[in-house]
Amino acid sequence: MSGPAAGAAPSGVPELYRSFLIAPANRADMLRKFHLRGADLNIMCLEDGTPDSEKVGARTIAADAARHLQEVGCRGRVFIRSNAPGTRWIDDDLASIVAAPVAGVCVPKVATLEQVVWIERRLRHHEAEQGRPPLQLILGIESVAGVVNAVDICTRSTRACAVYFGGEDYTTDLGGRRSREGLEFLYARSLIAMAARLAGIGAIDTATLEIREPELFRADAIAARNLGYHGRVCVHPDQVPIAHEEFGPSAAEIDRSRRLLEAEQASLGSGLAVFEFEGEMTDGPLVKRACNILAVAAEQGRAMGAPPAS
Amino acid sequence: MSGPAAGAAPSGVPELYRSFLIAPANRADMLRKFHLRGADLNIMCLEDGTPDSEKVGARTIAADAARHLQEVGCRGRVFIRSNAPGTRWIDDDLASIVAAPVAGVCVPKVATLEQVVWIERRLRHHEAEQGRPPLQLILGIESVAGVVNAVDICTRSTRACAVYFGGEDYTTDLGGRRSREGLEFLYARSLIAMAARLAGIGAIDTATLEIREPELFRADAIAARNLGYHGRVCVHPDQVPIAHEEFGPSAAEIDRSRRLLEAEQASLGSGLAVFEFEGEMTDGPLVKRACNILAVAAEQGRAMGAPPAS
Amino acid sequence: MSGPAAGAAPSGVPELYRSFLIAPANRADMLRKFHLRGADLNIMCLEDGTPDSEKVGARTIAADAARHLQEVGCRGRVFIRSNAPGTRWIDDDLASIVAAPVAGVCVPKVATLEQVVWIERRLRHHEAEQGRPPLQLILGIESVAGVVNAVDICTRSTRACAVYFGGEDYTTDLGGRRSREGLEFLYARSLIAMAARLAGIGAIDTATLEIREPELFRADAIAARNLGYHGRVCVHPDQVPIAHEEFGPSAAEIDRSRRLLEAEQASLGSGLAVFEFEGEMTDGPLVKRACNILAVAAEQGRAMGAPPAS
Repeated sequence: MSGPAAGAAPSGVPELYRSFLIAPANRADMLRKFHLRGADLNIMCLEDGTPDSEKVGARTIAADAARHLQEVGCRGRVFIRSNAPGTRWIDDDLASIVAAPVAGVCVPKVATLEQVVWIERRLRHHEAEQGRPPLQLILGIESVAGVVNAVDICTRSTRACAVYFGGEDYTTDLGGRRSREGLEFLYARSLIAMAARLAGIGAIDTATLEIREPELFRADAIAARNLGYHGRVCVHPDQVPIAHEEFGPSAAEIDRSRRLLEAEQASLGSGLAVFEFEGEMTDGPLVKRACNILAVAAEQGRAMGAPPAS
Repeated sequence: MSGPAAGAAPSGVPELYRSFLIAPANRADMLRKFHLRGADLNIMCLEDGTPDSEKVGARTIAADAARHLQEVGCRGRVFIRSNAPGTRWIDDDLASIVAAPVAGVCVPKVATLEQVVWIERRLRHHEAEQGRPPLQLILGIESVAGVVNAVDICTRSTRACAVYFGGEDYTTDLGGRRSREGLEFLYARSLIAMAARLAGIGAIDTATLEIREPELFRADAIAARNLGYHGRVCVHPDQVPIAHEEFGPSAAEIDRSRRLLEAEQASLGSGLAVFEFEGEMTDGPLVKRACNILAVAAEQGRAMGAPPAS
Repeated sequence: MSGPAAGAAPSGVPELYRSFLIAPANRADMLRKFHLRGADLNIMCLEDGTPDSEKVGARTIAADAARHLQEVGCRGRVFIRSNAPGTRWIDDDLASIVAAPVAGVCVPKVATLEQVVWIERRLRHHEAEQGRPPLQLILGIESVAGVVNAVDICTRSTRACAVYFGGEDYTTDLGGRRSREGLEFLYARSLIAMAARLAGIGAIDTATLEIREPELFRADAIAARNLGYHGRVCVHPDQVPIAHEEFGPSAAEIDRSRRLLEAEQASLGSGLAVFEFEGEMTDGPLVKRACNILAVAAEQGRAMGAPPAS
C-alpha cells in the first residue's frame, strides 16, 4: 500500500454519510467510474452484487479498481462489502479487503454481538499480519435478529463508524412484504437510527429500488432524515444528488435557523428563554436544533471543500 | 381417545395459519359447523367467549363437538382456548382439553415467561396422567407486559407452534383506543411478528371486529401480511375466505415471482447478480422472496390437497 | 410550610393528568395566573423556560408564586420543574423545590435508571433535612437513551406518579426532524406510554408547539389518547380546554359505553358472552373498556368536584 486510501478524509475533516452508492464488485466498468458519481461512500459489493461463481475473482477486480480511484482522485470514501458472517467467503474477503487501498470494509447481515466481536478480531488479525492501520467498518443490519440486537451491535462495536439498515433483506427474513409507505418496517427503521445515535455513529437508511421514481427516493429520504438517518443506500447513480439535497440542510433550513437564533438573542435580551417564533412556542430543543443545522451545514461545506457557512 | 385428533395434519404436510376462527365453547350449534367454514384453525373459546356461569359445562360441550368434527372430517385443526393463566379455571381447562380429541390448546393473555413455563409444565402433567402425546400450543399475547416480553415468550417456549396478537385486549390493558388505521398498536403488532419469526413459529394477527365491513378486514390482512403475519383471527365465518385470499400468495404474485426468477437466470448467464426487473433494481433479497413465495404456494397447495404448483 | 401544598388533592380523590401547563419560572406574572387556567398540572419551569442568568433568582420567584397560588386556591397541582440531572443547578433546585409549598417536582431529561436513583436519594435527603413529607415526582423522558431505558425508568422508580414524553428534545437528541404526522417518533411515543402502563403511573404526551393551530393540538391529543396517554404537555393556556375535552371521556363515549353494557346484560341473559353491538363483534375486552370509560368519567367528575356520573 502506498499513499492514503481512496477517499480517506484528511484528518480533522468531518465524514459524510449522505450517499452509500453500491456497485457489484465484479463490474470493473462500474467501479472505475465511482469518482464521477460524487457519492460520499462508494461500496464495491462482493456479496449479493456478485454471483457466487465470480466471488473470488471479484476481490482482485475490486482491489484494482480501488487503486485506480486512488490514482484518479475520488472525493468519497471507498469501501468493499464482504460476504456475510458465517459464509465460506468472509474471512478471505476480509484478508483481501485489508490488503486493498480502501478506506474501509462493510460487513452485511450482522445479526449478533458475537458476530461483531468475530469480525473485529479477524480484522485485527489481518491488519497485524499485513502491517496495516485499522480500516473503518460499516455494519449492515438486515435481519430480525439484527434489529432485536441493534442497540448491542452498535453500542458495543469497538470500530464501527456507521450502520446501515438493509430493509429488503430484513423484509425477506421477516417473511413480510414492502409497501410504498413502509409502515411495516417503521419499528426496525426507528430502532436502528436510535441505536446508531446511542453509539454516536452514522446511520444509513435502506434503499429505494424503484430507480425510475426519483420522487419516491426523495420522499423516503425525507422520512429517513426525520428518523435521524444521515444518508441512504443508493442503488443507482441518479439517486446520489437527491440524497445530497435531502441530507444536507437546505438553504431554507439554514436561513430559518439563523432567523430563529436572532429571535432567541432578542428574547434573551428581554430576560425570556421562551418565545414565539413563526407560530411555534420555541425554547431549548428548537434552539439547539437550529445550532445543529448550522453546524452540520458548516461541516458539510468543510468536507466538500467549500468555504464554511458564515 | 381413538384416531387422530380433528384436523391434525398428516405427518410431513405443512401447517397453515391463515384463519383462526373463534366460536364460543358453550355454543354447540356453532362448534358443530366448524367443518363447513373451511378455516385453517378452529378455536372453541372457553375464555371471553363463554359466560362465567357456563365455563364448566362448556368444557364438555367443546369435547363433544371436537368428537363430532373428528367423525364428520374437518380439514382445519381444532383447538380449545382455555381461560387465562392465573384464573381459577385454567388448570381444569387444561386437563379437559388434554382429554379431548383436539389438535391443540390455545392459552390467552400470556404475559410472562414464567407463565409459559407453568403452562407447559401443567400440560406435561396432564398428558402423562392421561397417557396422551403432546398437544400443539398457541399462545396469545394481549397485554403490555406480554408485548414487552414477547421475544422471551416466543423464543423460549418449548412447545408453541404459533402466537396470536390480541389487539383488543392489548388496547384495553394499555388504556388506549383503537383507530381504524391502528397506528396506536403498530409497535406491539410489529414486535409480536418479529418475535414469532425469531422463534420460527406462526404469527396470527388480531381481529377486525367490524363484521359488516369485509374491505376493512381485507385492508387489515394486507397490512398484517406485510408485517410478517401468516394469518388473522376471524370472528365471523365470512372473514375466513378473505384471509385465505390475502395470506396465500395470489396468482399475480406467483406469476411475477416466476418471471423474476427467469430474469435472474438470464442475468446470471451474463455474469450479473444484480439486474433491473420491472423498474426495480433487483438482487439477493428479492430473489429469495420470490423463491419463498413459490415455496409457500407449493406448501399451501399440498396442505390443501391440491397438486403442487409446477 | 403551612397548610396543604397548592393543588394537592384531598386524600382519596383521584389525580388527573390531562393538562400539564408549563410557564417559565422567572415569569411571576404568568405563574401567578395559573389558577385562572384550569390545568390539572401547573409546571413552573426552571429548565429551558428560564435563561441561565436568571436560574437562581427564579427559584425564589417560583416559591413565592406557589405560595400565592396556595392562598388564592388553585385546583390543579403545582409542580416546579428542575434543571436536568448532571447540570450544575439540579441539586440546589431540588433543595429549593422541597422548601416550596408545591405538590411535587418534575425532573426533565431523565435518561438512565442511575439518574432516577440519584434523584430519589437527593429528594429524600432534602426532605429529611427540612422535615417535609415526600413530594410527588414526574419524570421527563426526552432522549434516545431515556426511551431505550423507559421500561426500567418507569417501573423501577419508587416515587414517580407520572412520566412525560419530551418529543422536541427527543427529536433534537436523535438528530431527526418533526413532521406534522409524527411517524418519526411513534416508536418512542408508543414505548413511553407502555412503560407508564407497566408501572401504573400517569402518561403525559409531548407538546404541540404550533400555538395558533388548535385543531393540530386536538388531532395530536386524539392520537395520544389512542396510544394510552392520560394527558398532554400544554405550552399555551388555550390548549388546556382542548386537552380536557379529548382526555376526558366525551358524552358520546359515556353514552355508548352505557348502551354497550346494557346489550351485554341482555346477551348474558341469553347465555351468550359474545354479541354484535353496533356492527362490532363484542366480548370481554370491549366490555371492560366500556366499564373503564364509566369509571374514569366518575373519577374525573369526583376530582372536578362534580356529582359522580350515575
